[in-house]
Amino acid sequence: MKSYNNKITIALLSGGLDSATATALALESGKKVIGLSFDYGQRHKRELKAANALAHHFKLEEHHTIKVDLGSWGGSSLTDLGEGIPENGLNQDKIPNTYVPGRNTVFIAIGLSLAEARKANELVLGINAIDYSGYPDCRPNYLNAYQTLADLSSKAAIEGNTIKLWAPLIHLNKVEIVKEAIRLNIPIDLTWSCYNGRNEPCGVCDSCRIRNSALHKAGYRPDTTNKQI
Amino acid sequence: MKSYNNKITIALLSGGLDSATATALALESGKKVIGLSFDYGQRHKRELKAANALAHHFKLEEHHTIKVDLGSWGGSSLTDLGEGIPENGLNQDKIPNTYVPGRNTVFIAIGLSLAEARKANELVLGINAIDYSGYPDCRPNYLNAYQTLADLSSKAAIEGNTIKLWAPLIHLNKVEIVKEAIRLNIPIDLTWSCYNGRNEPCGVCDSCRIRNSALHKAGYRPDTTNKQI
Repeated sequence: MKSYNNKITIALLSGGLDSATATALALESGKKVIGLSFDYGQRHKRELKAANALAHHFKLEEHHTIKVDLGSWGGSSLTDLGEGIPENGLNQDKIPNTYVPGRNTVFIAIGLSLAEARKANELVLGINAIDYSGYPDCRPNYLNAYQTLADLSSKAAIEGNTIKLWAPLIHLNKVEIVKEAIRLNIPIDLTWSCYNGRNEPCGVCDSCRIRNSALHKAGYRPDTTNKQI
Repeated sequence: MKSYNNKITIALLSGGLDSATATALALESGKKVIGLSFDYGQRHKRELKAANALAHHFKLEEHHTIKVDLGSWGGSSLTDLGEGIPENGLNQDKIPNTYVPGRNTVFIAIGLSLAEARKANELVLGINAIDYSGYPDCRPNYLNAYQTLADLSSKAAIEGNTIKLWAPLIHLNKVEIVKEAIRLNIPIDLTWSCYNGRNEPCGVCDSCRIRNSALHKAGYRPDTTNKQI
């Protein structure tokens, strides 16, 4: 039985603020980090440019971008250009139409595949359950269920090498995440949060509004975000 | 809240005998079936031709083939041309090198995405835990853990529309599966099981050997398999 190298972490790197912060926390903990990003048919493909810039900034060991076209069957305003991006989705009971069916379940599954292939024993995720958009696949009980599945699904697990799903931001609110990002010297300007696929952040979609509000409350200058690349 | 149409099933259709049989069972139960196949970097891409032929034969409502390149990071002889396909992997304690890290976890996740987008309430899988190659992601406890995850992961589930993972073959051995395939009038000749990517099945890889032995024991003429397309 081979022993897994516990110094390797796979980071799901969307290009946003949260996953950048999670990646930096993995690096701070002394791990070698391999980045994994997804071209899933999102209208804000611009975030992949941010993911590349962040992978370069963090000097990641490897950075993979995998195409998996969840947009081909629609079901979300993030992938279906016929649907409008909401600008009032916060603090409502309803899950907004930016929810992409199965997205995190697919991304984590692909991350587990890469983790096993690289003998990594950790997958770091930027998901958080506070100040998010109410997506079901960002909740702690979802993550716990996925850990149970991961512990059964792999040859690695059968051989005693568990792959831990680590979501260091899950209980932080957005202001606390921004403060962590500032503490970790993350170039916040390189990150991209806007749901719309334009050259500049729209400033009005739910994601921009959560981000800008948190940057303001944390004392970050909001007028410089997303402007440098 | 919208009520989900419980007459739609998503079938993961590899092009092999098992998934064809599972698909036919879903059709027999009166469901409309949407097929889902994967181009994941497998050396036996030939199976996708079989999946297309089967989708046509079954007159499926829709048939999607999604590209997700699990071969890009290696880790399996099924995707890495540098590794040899085993011809003696049966009845051994070791999981053979044809195991693709995370494959079923990824495929089921993408199937759940399509199921939710189409408001289907079932995903039918050809996996079986007897006469298989010892893969961890074909076991009943794996599937049970995935059901728990599926019940938490989706907007559908929150709205009370559970997507059931149905693996009708999980407790059947390969001879019993062949007998089911014959009973269901599946054109077995259209299915493809061989792990090697040639025009004709090799006859010696684990998958060919399991298949040919079962076809023989079930009274099917093995010399006609895989020859018609």
